[in-house]
Amino acid sequence: MGTFGSCQAHLADVTSPIRVTVWGENFHEQSERDRAGMAERYPSGMHGAIASGLSELLGDAVAVRTATQDQPDHGLTDDVLNNTDVLTWWGHATHADVEDAVVDQVQQRVLGGMGLLVLHSAHFSKIFRRLMGTTCSLAWRNSRDTELIWTVNPSHPIAAGIPHPIVINEHEMYGEFFDIPTPEELIFLSTFAGGEVFRSGCCWRRGKGKVFYFSPGDQEYPVYHHPDIKRVLANAVLWARPEQDTNFVAPAVVSRPAPQFDRRILVEGVDA
Amino acid sequence: MGTFGSCQAHLADVTSPIRVTVWGENFHEQSERDRAGMAERYPSGMHGAIASGLSELLGDAVAVRTATQDQPDHGLTDDVLNNTDVLTWWGHATHADVEDAVVDQVQQRVLGGMGLLVLHSAHFSKIFRRLMGTTCSLAWRNSRDTELIWTVNPSHPIAAGIPHPIVINEHEMYGEFFDIPTPEELIFLSTFAGGEVFRSGCCWRRGKGKVFYFSPGDQEYPVYHHPDIKRVLANAVLWARPEQDTNFVAPAVVSRPAPQFDRRILVEGVDA
Amino acid sequence: MGTFGSCQAHLADVTSPIRVTVWGENFHEQSERDRAGMAERYPSGMHGAIASGLSELLGDAVAVRTATQDQPDHGLTDDVLNNTDVLTWWGHATHADVEDAVVDQVQQRVLGGMGLLVLHSAHFSKIFRRLMGTTCSLAWRNSRDTELIWTVNPSHPIAAGIPHPIVINEHEMYGEFFDIPTPEELIFLSTFAGGEVFRSGCCWRRGKGKVFYFSPGDQEYPVYHHPDIKRVLANAVLWARPEQDTNFVAPAVVSRPAPQFDRRILVEGVDA
Amino acid sequence: MGTFGSCQAHLADVTSPIRVTVWGENFHEQSERDRAGMAERYPSGMHGAIASGLSELLGDAVAVRTATQDQPDHGLTDDVLNNTDVLTWWGHATHADVEDAVVDQVQQRVLGGMGLLVLHSAHFSKIFRRLMGTTCSLAWRNSRDTELIWTVNPSHPIAAGIPHPIVINEHEMYGEFFDIPTPEELIFLSTFAGGEVFRSGCCWRRGKGKVFYFSPGDQEYPVYHHPDIKRVLANAVLWARPEQDTNFVAPAVVSRPAPQFDRRILVEGVDA
Repeated sequence: MGTFGSCQAHLADVTSPIRVTVWGENFHEQSERDRAGMAERYPSGMHGAIASGLSELLGDAVAVRTATQDQPDHGLTDDVLNNTDVLTWWGHATHADVEDAVVDQVQQRVLGGMGLLVLHSAHFSKIFRRLMGTTCSLAWRNSRDTELIWTVNPSHPIAAGIPHPIVINEHEMYGEFFDIPTPEELIFLSTFAGGEVFRSGCCWRRGKGKVFYFSPGDQEYPVYHHPDIKRVLANAVLWARPEQDTNFVAPAVVSRPAPQFDRRILVEGVDA
Repeated sequence: MGTFGSCQAHLADVTSPIRVTVWGENFHEQSERDRAGMAERYPSGMHGAIASGLSELLGDAVAVRTATQDQPDHGLTDDVLNNTDVLTWWGHATHADVEDAVVDQVQQRVLGGMGLLVLHSAHFSKIFRRLMGTTCSLAWRNSRDTELIWTVNPSHPIAAGIPHPIVINEHEMYGEFFDIPTPEELIFLSTFAGGEVFRSGCCWRRGKGKVFYFSPGDQEYPVYHHPDIKRVLANAVLWARPEQDTNFVAPAVVSRPAPQFDRRILVEGVDA
Repeated sequence: MGTFGSCQAHLADVTSPIRVTVWGENFHEQSERDRAGMAERYPSGMHGAIASGLSELLGDAVAVRTATQDQPDHGLTDDVLNNTDVLTWWGHATHADVEDAVVDQVQQRVLGGMGLLVLHSAHFSKIFRRLMGTTCSLAWRNSRDTELIWTVNPSHPIAAGIPHPIVINEHEMYGEFFDIPTPEELIFLSTFAGGEVFRSGCCWRRGKGKVFYFSPGDQEYPVYHHPDIKRVLANAVLWARPEQDTNFVAPAVVSRPAPQFDRRILVEGVDA
Repeated sequence: MGTFGSCQAHLADVTSPIRVTVWGENFHEQSERDRAGMAERYPSGMHGAIASGLSELLGDAVAVRTATQDQPDHGLTDDVLNNTDVLTWWGHATHADVEDAVVDQVQQRVLGGMGLLVLHSAHFSKIFRRLMGTTCSLAWRNSRDTELIWTVNPSHPIAAGIPHPIVINEHEMYGEFFDIPTPEELIFLSTFAGGEVFRSGCCWRRGKGKVFYFSPGDQEYPVYHHPDIKRVLANAVLWARPEQDTNFVAPAVVSRPAPQFDRRILVEGVDA
């Protein structure tokens, strides 16, 4: 099962489309060394391709925009963030230049309920490392390995309509040990021609928000045009969307709530 | 490392004591408002009491020192950290004054294998929030509630010798919703006279290190003299200790490892 | 947020209602000792009340039926099971009399994708013990304790519209240690007037199916008429429903799939 | 148990060896078709090889015996089970002939604290399926694939001294989807020459006992002589051993424990 129609039906909360912001670093698209190849592979940038894929597969169920690092506030102004239900993040070469103040806002919004999809080299993004607390390091080799993506949680919504395995003819290898907190849900495992393995589809909850890390997506390969990869991202947006009644306020201290019970007698105790 | 001898070492553990650093904020012990009460309850400070408890219960199996926030580098110099296997952390009023550079070092050491015990109000410490990625907020009320600590993982080493429940006659209430990542291991649940509940004993792995959060320990109550609380901390130190062969180097990128396989033929593929 | 309308909107997969079978032991409803009290509290039996609650809150989004142990095949014929998306199970006094052959069928259907809600004393049902592998034992005391149900996963769909805490004026106490596999998702923790605690709302995946255990529901108390309890059950049915494309076939061995790669050269190896 | 002495005992571990029973089906070792090859590869049977490996690596820290399916009570008499701390289980062709009464005893002993190592084709053993509740099915192909075993939990004791990856020159392929409950701890991932992947080292707790599933070990390959495989099994025995004070009694119902609190006033309530 992998048709557009079934996604629509599955989602079908047709009154309010999911507001998705596809964030891109937009470095390789502009850099002298890479821009020619990028223009061929991704004429609208990787962020443009990801956004198109979501619109194509989810139609009216989503309202998609893009934002890039070179924009003011990296395109993530209060207005944009306050109107984003799910944020996707692709970065690689300039993580260090992302302003901490923007990362703070993104983190707060995730903890308040915004979904976050972290893609490929964004394992080293400030926002992902902030939410994980680990180094997020890994092994890598860029030698055009074939990558096979296997599903280890077949009834999970992110795996809906996904072949077993997805085949990516050529891609960069990411290998274990991937220094992340144990995924709360493990969806995909990737193997590579060289024999390596990687936990390539991982879910966590942080505060009221959901986080999905998905490793395919090196800029030198046309991965975001791959139909199965587009399908995973569409499924992930549906999965990561906030609950209906989310107020996007991060959990906060509750001071001195009144007790529910009034105890009179302690039956047993120890002095301390 | 793969010989019989290393197995023996792993088992025996009697040659090298676990090097424990008990870190204390040392604010309430010194503040005008609190120092009188603290001097009665904790003549050597809370950190002194915690350290004594560990030495009393673990004897030669540990080498315990204390460090406090008011010391240079908050007492956590390179020399101290490089010689610490397990760090305990108690803070409350002055989390914001802990230097980020010191927090960086502590985080790196945890990711490299150092164990970390996070106590009571240290749920809001920089190091805990750094490792968790969430707000770590909760509900609280300081009205001398009796606290009962129940074990939900009875065969876990941290629960060894612990009564079901531990009874703390009077303590500050901490209540859910405790905004933490789902504990990888949940050891204790606390209930309070007012009816509240709290996940009071929680374990996570971060990098190569182990983290244990344990909620009892408000400075206005003599909790760190409680025999069962001392027992939990002793068990937790044993649990959190690094593996025998730990080099305390945090996970890092592995670049271009040679492939294990050389593939000739791709049996099946898809263009993308 | 707890209106019927929002549930409808949330679900809104309006083409095919979720087919729910509410299974009841129907022993206390009939027994000489209990039938008078049951007739007052639950004129249609507990199963009738649970079914009514679901229909009331979910309307056209569900098609609800009941089945009872005293029926042929315990009401779970092939025809019934093959047309059930989510099964709820309440049993207490006669677990041992449930036919193993029926339990086999139910287990297979769960592993194939059917959702399962296990209620109160059904922690000792054959089907729950079969899916968990543990004793599923616990502590209990029937002394009209007030029960407070606290949410520890506030953005989880099962917790939608649920107050923090739910208050049940009088109920049987269930206490830890509850011998279950660690819940994959922990939704609720209950506290009782006597001070006990219980992991009262727990989720697991088994095969392609989802399992939710929810402890409230002793037959001596009108718990299934409680608006918040009805809300939890409605949320749980929505959560437990199978994915759109489920074929209800349990995972099975895949023999001799063709390799994806044809390896020629092993770069490195060890003899064994 | 709460004295310094018990901590020492917990640490030292040198007084009482871990009592290990290595259980083997002993079918291929005897069958007409296989016995010649088995006699070459495993002169003492696979169970003999596994037992030797443990004794070689753990010396006086273990007391190892074997037991086989063809013995009375499958070699698992009360006397044997009551004196087993860790049981290893290898079966393949005759799972159905293992007596349910023996499986019951083994399950009870695991729930009471005995460790269990489940090896290779024992994924389909009665005891493993009993403890997991799922089909435990998988994909397989026996075509002499090279298997690489990668560590995804490098500081876990089972991974101590294990190369990254372990290389098995030739082995049967086991592939996902492996229908098991989500492992509570995932230690190893295997990749195969054909491109498949498998969660090959998985940990769960069941009751007071620990369970480790490890996939290498097809009878047609000399895998149990592989030094790294022997190391994993030795580490796993140490990990799975019961806690010092284990009484091997499975969790059981606790009836009518006295309340800890006596409540007088309910501050807030709802009628139900």
